[in-house]
Amino acid sequence: MVKLQTHQGHLQVAGCDVPELAAKYGTPFYLVNQNLIEDRCKEIHADFLAKYPGSRAAYASKAFLCLEMCRIIAQQGLGLDVVSGGELFTAVQAGFPMERVIFHGNNKTDQEIAMAVDHQVGRVVVDNMYELERLQAEAGRQDRKMDILFRITPGVDSHTHKFISTGQLDSKFGIPTDPEHLRDYMDKVMTMTNLRLLGFHFHVGSQLHANDSHLKAVEILAGIIQRVKEEHGFITEELNVGGGYGIYYTDEDEPEPLSYFTDGIMETLHKECASRGLNVPAVTIEPGRWVIGEAGMTIYTIGSIKEVPGIRTYAAVDGGMPDNPRPSLYDAKYDAVIANKMDAPRDAVATIAGKCCESGDILIWDLPVPQLAPGDTLAVRSTGAYNFAMASNYNRLPRPGVVMVKNGLDRLVVRPQSYQDMLSTEI
Amino acid sequence: MVKLQTHQGHLQVAGCDVPELAAKYGTPFYLVNQNLIEDRCKEIHADFLAKYPGSRAAYASKAFLCLEMCRIIAQQGLGLDVVSGGELFTAVQAGFPMERVIFHGNNKTDQEIAMAVDHQVGRVVVDNMYELERLQAEAGRQDRKMDILFRITPGVDSHTHKFISTGQLDSKFGIPTDPEHLRDYMDKVMTMTNLRLLGFHFHVGSQLHANDSHLKAVEILAGIIQRVKEEHGFITEELNVGGGYGIYYTDEDEPEPLSYFTDGIMETLHKECASRGLNVPAVTIEPGRWVIGEAGMTIYTIGSIKEVPGIRTYAAVDGGMPDNPRPSLYDAKYDAVIANKMDAPRDAVATIAGKCCESGDILIWDLPVPQLAPGDTLAVRSTGAYNFAMASNYNRLPRPGVVMVKNGLDRLVVRPQSYQDMLSTEI
Repeated sequence: MVKLQTHQGHLQVAGCDVPELAAKYGTPFYLVNQNLIEDRCKEIHADFLAKYPGSRAAYASKAFLCLEMCRIIAQQGLGLDVVSGGELFTAVQAGFPMERVIFHGNNKTDQEIAMAVDHQVGRVVVDNMYELERLQAEAGRQDRKMDILFRITPGVDSHTHKFISTGQLDSKFGIPTDPEHLRDYMDKVMTMTNLRLLGFHFHVGSQLHANDSHLKAVEILAGIIQRVKEEHGFITEELNVGGGYGIYYTDEDEPEPLSYFTDGIMETLHKECASRGLNVPAVTIEPGRWVIGEAGMTIYTIGSIKEVPGIRTYAAVDGGMPDNPRPSLYDAKYDAVIANKMDAPRDAVATIAGKCCESGDILIWDLPVPQLAPGDTLAVRSTGAYNFAMASNYNRLPRPGVVMVKNGLDRLVVRPQSYQDMLSTEI
Repeated sequence: MVKLQTHQGHLQVAGCDVPELAAKYGTPFYLVNQNLIEDRCKEIHADFLAKYPGSRAAYASKAFLCLEMCRIIAQQGLGLDVVSGGELFTAVQAGFPMERVIFHGNNKTDQEIAMAVDHQVGRVVVDNMYELERLQAEAGRQDRKMDILFRITPGVDSHTHKFISTGQLDSKFGIPTDPEHLRDYMDKVMTMTNLRLLGFHFHVGSQLHANDSHLKAVEILAGIIQRVKEEHGFITEELNVGGGYGIYYTDEDEPEPLSYFTDGIMETLHKECASRGLNVPAVTIEPGRWVIGEAGMTIYTIGSIKEVPGIRTYAAVDGGMPDNPRPSLYDAKYDAVIANKMDAPRDAVATIAGKCCESGDILIWDLPVPQLAPGDTLAVRSTGAYNFAMASNYNRLPRPGVVMVKNGLDRLVVRPQSYQDMLSTEI
């Protein structure tokens, strides 16, 4: 949990005054703290990459992506996990080093496969046989040799919300772990002259505060690494353990440091490999939310305030479900503060409603707040991940812009959509 | 329920061959049947507007809006219900007659209020006191007289999914029905020289197959109409009863004709007004989903097909949650057909997965299908409402285009986004 900074009753982020930013840029907007992103990247270097030589980390860009984010991640020396042609296109436009790109997806289109080969991305994580065959064909056509991993579904239930629990056996993702299935893939890939299998990938879930799913999956994967060595003589060079490292949203979250996950993973992997007589593969992690989540806030202005007598007070903001669908999608919980009343006691309670014509458009139920007035500046915390990335134009609300702050300086990195922008594809 | 047309095993919509459209435009795209939209508008005219002189109907544009849809609705002689500056801007750009526009919203911004006054929209539905005061101030500033309705929260529970049930008392929308609350609004509006109150609006929920919520709300409103007559000498000229008329999604839905709702509403209103000695106000309805929902389909191509042994077969399409978030948001159910295999027996079962890196990205669980192969064309039914309108660029998937079909002719009315489009606001 990041401690909030204040000055004379105003919320400060990276040395910038939030109510002043609200006045300067107009609300709503996404506020991103570049200092915090860089702190997280430093933690990855110090506590994982430096500690385990040969290991790699790729930022999972589906959490939040724009050209500037690509540049920051490139500067910070991390790789980039992309899941679509659109994410890859963004990386290309930003000049991101392609050898550090990892390409994911359960249903890559022909066009996406061609794009991945054309740009010779660092790794393609192959999800299924249909993709494997098309990737080989396309790599052959372009006369390229592509490095790949197989995505494995280890069958681990991570006990999170069902929508963000992706390691279970009944999954649209990856290759089941049963010997027959995997044997087909191994036999096939060994014959493919344009593909070089380096190892395996798994992802066990999201927003986890315990490492048991990761450790269990590592054990399962160690068994697979042993099996493919014995059956196919295949030496696994790389193991990509995905992401899922939880962050702070509300006081119900007690996030662990990254090293709690990575040290646990490495310890289990070393132990499992030692007991099975295996070389220890190089490990890659793919944090997304963990890098960007707490670095983001959404800044709104309070508008209508409505007391339903004896029931509840609603305070409505100038955004909502279109810029943050997570409360509606996952019943996700958020904390928020009144950025211009940081010193006032939180002696009132308000439910923060969005402005959509949809009764489910509630951002936060029963939030402790100071006495509110229209015009107050609301800052919703931990919106860096899966907010801008999931934003829609529902109710034809334009998507807010992104203001990046660092060391007391602010800059607009994505401008807000205009009404005209929303008509740009109309004929 | 609209019966599907086929020809030589191919799905036909408005006389157009769907697999041919898929080849022509590339998938995914939204396919909209203009003939069906016009049929629905004709039904509104015949079964409601012609039957009840003075009544009005406004299409709730939040369900699906583009310039061409505005033009169709204008041609069909209906009004337009808008809920934001963005929707109003679209209507203005399409040349929609402003006197037929009804402006809604629980938290209209100053800019939106100024826009509504500037364009002199037909009705502003006032949600709360803060808005009432700003609307009067703005109308005064622009020296305009604006016609308004008050949105009333009748406290009716429509037993639908909580996210789309909007008439309950604990609501972010509207003015509570208790006498004291409403008295404040009536006293206030009587003094406002730039606003002319014409009556009241309510909305009891969405996707309803029973009219009891509407009828109950009409009874409650009749009591309010009587009360404001007695207490304030106010004669209610208009009653806007919103929308909520259910459509066909799957065989679990048994939608009623529009007249089941509107005749019931009119009968109850006449009875209530007669027994209370009131003039019967003119009634406005606001169907959105009912007009556009069944007219829309989403056309995808099947990609990877994966059998999880003993559990389930997943067939992935080239779209998903970003173009249709309703299964994730509301657990919404859809039916779909294989547009190029309409004559084949549906003797297999597949779960239709999207291509997002999100395990919740499942469009349809366990759908009866013919034997599937990559390249098959999937048509998901009843996606006209709240699909294009709620689409996001999650995973940086470009938003699909909209193909309109009528009398055997097809035309692109919204082109698909390009990768470059998604970067258009980047700095």
